[in-house]
Amino acid sequence: MQRSTPKLQQERTYTTNAGRVEVGVGLPYDCKPGPHPDCPGSLRMSSVGDGAGGDGGSTASQGKTPVVKAFRGLEGVGSGWTKASCPCCVAERVEPLVLLQLGEQVQPETKKWLIRLIGASVKEGGAALLSHPGEEDDGDILVISAPRCTLLLAAEELGLSKAYHNGDIAAFSYQDRGNFRDSDDMQKFMTLAERQYVVKYELDGLRAQRDLRVPGFSDGFTLHRRDNIWQKLREAGVIVDMFPLNNEDKLKALTKAWYLGNQLAQPLDMIHEYFGGTFAFYFSFLDFYTWSLLPPAVLGLILSYFSGAVQKEALDSISGSKVTVADEDADSPSVSGHVIQAVFSMLWSTVVMEMWKRRSTSLSYRWGTLHLAERFAEPRPGYHGDMGVNPVTGRVEPLFPDWQRQLRMALVSLPVVGLFLGLVVLGMLGFYWGEAQAQLLHRDWDSLLSTVLLYAPSVLHIVYTNVLGTVYRHVALSLTEFENHREESAYDNHLTGKVLVFTFFNYFAVLFHIAFYKQDVPLLRKRLASLLVVTQLVNQVTEVVVPFLVDRFLSAPNRTKRDDDPQEDKFRNQGSLPAFPGLFAEYIELLVQFGYLSLFSCVYPLAAVLLLINNLTEIRSDAFRICQLFRKPFSAPVAGMGVWQTAFEVLSFVSVISNCWLLLLSPRLRELCQEGGLSTRNILVLAILMEHVLILIKMALAFLIPDEPDWIRIKRERIEFKSMQALGQVSEL
Amino acid sequence: MQRSTPKLQQERTYTTNAGRVEVGVGLPYDCKPGPHPDCPGSLRMSSVGDGAGGDGGSTASQGKTPVVKAFRGLEGVGSGWTKASCPCCVAERVEPLVLLQLGEQVQPETKKWLIRLIGASVKEGGAALLSHPGEEDDGDILVISAPRCTLLLAAEELGLSKAYHNGDIAAFSYQDRGNFRDSDDMQKFMTLAERQYVVKYELDGLRAQRDLRVPGFSDGFTLHRRDNIWQKLREAGVIVDMFPLNNEDKLKALTKAWYLGNQLAQPLDMIHEYFGGTFAFYFSFLDFYTWSLLPPAVLGLILSYFSGAVQKEALDSISGSKVTVADEDADSPSVSGHVIQAVFSMLWSTVVMEMWKRRSTSLSYRWGTLHLAERFAEPRPGYHGDMGVNPVTGRVEPLFPDWQRQLRMALVSLPVVGLFLGLVVLGMLGFYWGEAQAQLLHRDWDSLLSTVLLYAPSVLHIVYTNVLGTVYRHVALSLTEFENHREESAYDNHLTGKVLVFTFFNYFAVLFHIAFYKQDVPLLRKRLASLLVVTQLVNQVTEVVVPFLVDRFLSAPNRTKRDDDPQEDKFRNQGSLPAFPGLFAEYIELLVQFGYLSLFSCVYPLAAVLLLINNLTEIRSDAFRICQLFRKPFSAPVAGMGVWQTAFEVLSFVSVISNCWLLLLSPRLRELCQEGGLSTRNILVLAILMEHVLILIKMALAFLIPDEPDWIRIKRERIEFKSMQALGQVSEL
Repeated sequence: MQRSTPKLQQERTYTTNAGRVEVGVGLPYDCKPGPHPDCPGSLRMSSVGDGAGGDGGSTASQGKTPVVKAFRGLEGVGSGWTKASCPCCVAERVEPLVLLQLGEQVQPETKKWLIRLIGASVKEGGAALLSHPGEEDDGDILVISAPRCTLLLAAEELGLSKAYHNGDIAAFSYQDRGNFRDSDDMQKFMTLAERQYVVKYELDGLRAQRDLRVPGFSDGFTLHRRDNIWQKLREAGVIVDMFPLNNEDKLKALTKAWYLGNQLAQPLDMIHEYFGGTFAFYFSFLDFYTWSLLPPAVLGLILSYFSGAVQKEALDSISGSKVTVADEDADSPSVSGHVIQAVFSMLWSTVVMEMWKRRSTSLSYRWGTLHLAERFAEPRPGYHGDMGVNPVTGRVEPLFPDWQRQLRMALVSLPVVGLFLGLVVLGMLGFYWGEAQAQLLHRDWDSLLSTVLLYAPSVLHIVYTNVLGTVYRHVALSLTEFENHREESAYDNHLTGKVLVFTFFNYFAVLFHIAFYKQDVPLLRKRLASLLVVTQLVNQVTEVVVPFLVDRFLSAPNRTKRDDDPQEDKFRNQGSLPAFPGLFAEYIELLVQFGYLSLFSCVYPLAAVLLLINNLTEIRSDAFRICQLFRKPFSAPVAGMGVWQTAFEVLSFVSVISNCWLLLLSPRLRELCQEGGLSTRNILVLAILMEHVLILIKMALAFLIPDEPDWIRIKRERIEFKSMQALGQVSEL
Repeated sequence: MQRSTPKLQQERTYTTNAGRVEVGVGLPYDCKPGPHPDCPGSLRMSSVGDGAGGDGGSTASQGKTPVVKAFRGLEGVGSGWTKASCPCCVAERVEPLVLLQLGEQVQPETKKWLIRLIGASVKEGGAALLSHPGEEDDGDILVISAPRCTLLLAAEELGLSKAYHNGDIAAFSYQDRGNFRDSDDMQKFMTLAERQYVVKYELDGLRAQRDLRVPGFSDGFTLHRRDNIWQKLREAGVIVDMFPLNNEDKLKALTKAWYLGNQLAQPLDMIHEYFGGTFAFYFSFLDFYTWSLLPPAVLGLILSYFSGAVQKEALDSISGSKVTVADEDADSPSVSGHVIQAVFSMLWSTVVMEMWKRRSTSLSYRWGTLHLAERFAEPRPGYHGDMGVNPVTGRVEPLFPDWQRQLRMALVSLPVVGLFLGLVVLGMLGFYWGEAQAQLLHRDWDSLLSTVLLYAPSVLHIVYTNVLGTVYRHVALSLTEFENHREESAYDNHLTGKVLVFTFFNYFAVLFHIAFYKQDVPLLRKRLASLLVVTQLVNQVTEVVVPFLVDRFLSAPNRTKRDDDPQEDKFRNQGSLPAFPGLFAEYIELLVQFGYLSLFSCVYPLAAVLLLINNLTEIRSDAFRICQLFRKPFSAPVAGMGVWQTAFEVLSFVSVISNCWLLLLSPRLRELCQEGGLSTRNILVLAILMEHVLILIKMALAFLIPDEPDWIRIKRERIEFKSMQALGQVSEL
């Protein structure tokens, strides 16, 4: 039940001494919290785009510029670390945040240039970060950290909210930093994930202020004005990899609180602190969703108990025994149960999603991401367009009209996605047709060849589906790139949305075909039961067991861990772990579960029970995976689940249609109605009426349950009121 | 085509000289635009609620207080007007804005007290307005005006946006008033309707700072602390009436630009200036909606031309001739026409409403009401609750928890409204049953009495409907009062919503009964045609002709207008006109039209043509009504049509269901399908599928067409960005 913020008072940070990284007890940054007029970072809010900034560190060919001197000549203070370019950020201890893996062929002079670029102030076109060259000056790694001013300015630019001195959470403002709690102690002020993300954010956003040649290369490699430097360096193989470093003590504390004990609740705040918003929201949702499975699970058990036949039936279908005519009869006592289950699950799904929205808003407020200012920050690196003045912020940046993006989405993306969905359906129909043909052929011909041919449709369909999926992923990526979204989150959401629709369609096309076209409820029930059991098992195995075995027996021997290893080797070792594959697979698994449950709930009442059991183990295995089996991933501050929220909500509405239809198919129900003197037509009209009423109720529920708790609404309105007043006071911005 | 802001440079305002009101050329208020430290109005933003404000003008029993002296002794400056309590607001000319009709029995000392109350500063519990006692000090009228500071402060409190010196429209801030255009000339800065509304707003918001006795009454009438003074005075009969005064020159200019010429467009800005937001939005919508009827009208004409039969049919049904079997046959060529018409009208209604939203936002921006701050202003007078500190604004005011309001709405309002809708249905069913019984009785019995009894059901139903409607209006009022909304607009919207649902149900219950229960398309068509023609005609007559005749022959003789009349008599004459009954009837007429058109369009393709013709005359007659036949109404600043927007949108979605159903009923279509080998069941499934797809398309359209034009989005985001920056700069508000 440990859900409070971890109070690790004695943060361990790393300092370097004579080129070797060692572990020591960290001290808070020793600079004063007051505003420092000399801090070059404070110039960042002015228009960065005009290349008129002074003769910066990026003009490398000039040799020993003043900037170079500034950090090569002062090794004593930062002990190997470059010195912060602003005096108020000089710290005794520097915390290594991110490891940069350079290409093997990278020349020492390129590395030197890179160090200078990373350390130069923003005004000079640098990233205003700290770097450490590792054990050897010409080695192939670079450890990067961020000084206080850079972190604070980025926090403002990203729109992070932090605790104000009066206890409220308020959007951080660099100018007002003195009034924010702990704003002089970065370890407490920002989470580890945020600090690491800031490093990535700064590096990814680097743009060349003028044309310049990268030293250490034959003249082929030059950067042009406004080029995204990091992208170019990656393309040129200068930077091979970049990943956030683990903090072993924190990780140990986290694993203990998370999956090693017998806790029922997850340490969400610790997850947020260590892994960042994306992961914290995923695990929060997983947690919330798992507990919300309790009511349908209980109802399912009760209904199954009262109609023992259903239970037997379910066992039958799991064990794969033939569903006989008896099944049709066993259905009879559970007609009312069917209806109860269906109506319950339809309302349940809406209530759950609405309650989650509230929870999500609370979490977002607590984690300071409710008012992210992504719209007002620099556009994402891949964004392109004609250079111009942003009419909102007044900064010079690439501009791309919204209507053009919408046009591209409507005229290109939509038809292409539709085409691929059509191809999925086509594949499925082809498979059924092929199977029928093969059966026919086999009956007529009955030879060894025809027996082999019986398997051909399945094999072809699997190959087809896989090829289609791979092609689609690439197409989705290009399409989203082509749509040219300004914000990272918009890009992510559109990409995820595209892949998600396709994947979901792939999963459910067959089930929908059985339910709506074949109208074969027993087959549907059989399919559903086996899917629920088999896919969950397969998932758990592929997600955890395989990576674990790979890690233990293939990778680990190359990665002997000893406590007396130099810190640098420990860092290198982290790089040998595979990169985390992202949360898409995790979310889609939940979505498919939710789909089974809400779309076809009335067919298989025990689904919720199975899913509840599965998810309780899933939480732990997911936690183990992310903590141990993969490299630590970057995580941007986010305000919620993004497009997944929408996906779950849409599904919950589609479920009404599907459930009403399935109830209509229930043969007993139809008999009952016909006994009551209703014609087929009237039953259908009745079902439509019921569907419309249920959708209306769901919409009313969604409307009536406020998306944010009252206390957050009040805080939000207070902020709006204050901004309104502030705007009146500060004229002429 | 005059749509630009009227530039009446030489505003005519009224000054009073020795008690007699005369017309003179107005001068701008002569006070400086700079901040005036002495202005008591500037204290208003501090918490008004604490009764600790000095010994104010409200303590009337003390006789000659300093305040009384201040305005009774300086008649020379304001020539009969009370003097503004803040020096910067003293003006040469005062514009009479609102007329207060006092009860006949009101004593001169009560009137004196009232004048003092109206003139006292806000800090002293007064309204900080100017008043003029009319010709005689003890007469029964009071003319009221507002000084500059009061107007400006109210503009900020209401959240009005005005033109900034750089041309942008920005939320007005009193502190920053020097930077707003024309902020020293109230006649240009605020519209006449706004100035008049401010007077009403200030007076309605008056609350007693302490228990006090109203002089001129026997001791029975006292005001208690926090009582709403205006409400109490109305209840006690001190104030009989309050209405804004017409400005004859402006009215003349407006009528000329509006309905006297042959203009196709309406002078919307002038309407906004003179009559205020509510009316400007109504006429804008009427205008927009009328022009958007062109496409369906043209389509209807084309379809009718190509299937001449439909035309004949329509004429038949208008002329009332029996719809014979030939009608069924005449239906045959128009099946595809039916489908085209239905699908077109379904998509048309969504596109129109989305485009209107954009237009509405643009208008709202242009009229400075896009960022109304009603939430942050004082609650409406009728709002009650425990006194407490508003957590958002920090002011002391009555508080009433939201959840309690929602509970009341869900558990009381919703069931009661449902009950009344049920009573409507019951009445209709009773009418059908009664008619059948009467027919039966007549056939069996056939006497004079039975012939009379034939009419009984109709008469009873009409009486029942009317009684029900009257009762419902009262119930709706009490329910909305009981819900205790904080904002005037929320109160209005909920009240309007309730009445609107009932009225709409009343109108359409019979049509839905015919369409969905009786499933009798020819009867529906007949009913629709007669309703379209008859109700429009009746409406025009009752709305315009009757009031015109009443005005001309009954009221006018008592109201002889002569140019040399004293100004006061002219003002009094305005009071003899009937009060404007509000826009409810106008909007519901449009909504019912829209309902006929979208719900049953495929049945009667010529509906759009008839409605287009009707609306072109409707615009003029409505304009004539409001300008000439009624007293000028108050109008609060509003950001749009409020609940009517929702009503139109909901209707547009319901229309999909209704149209799909009607298409299904089309006998030819069914025959066609059966020829194509489709069973009844499959046709139904097909119709459901079509319905769902159409609703999906409508939702996609509504989602894809942005609710605000791009240029407004940019301006809005710029304001948000500026507020964010401002909030960071102004810490510790």
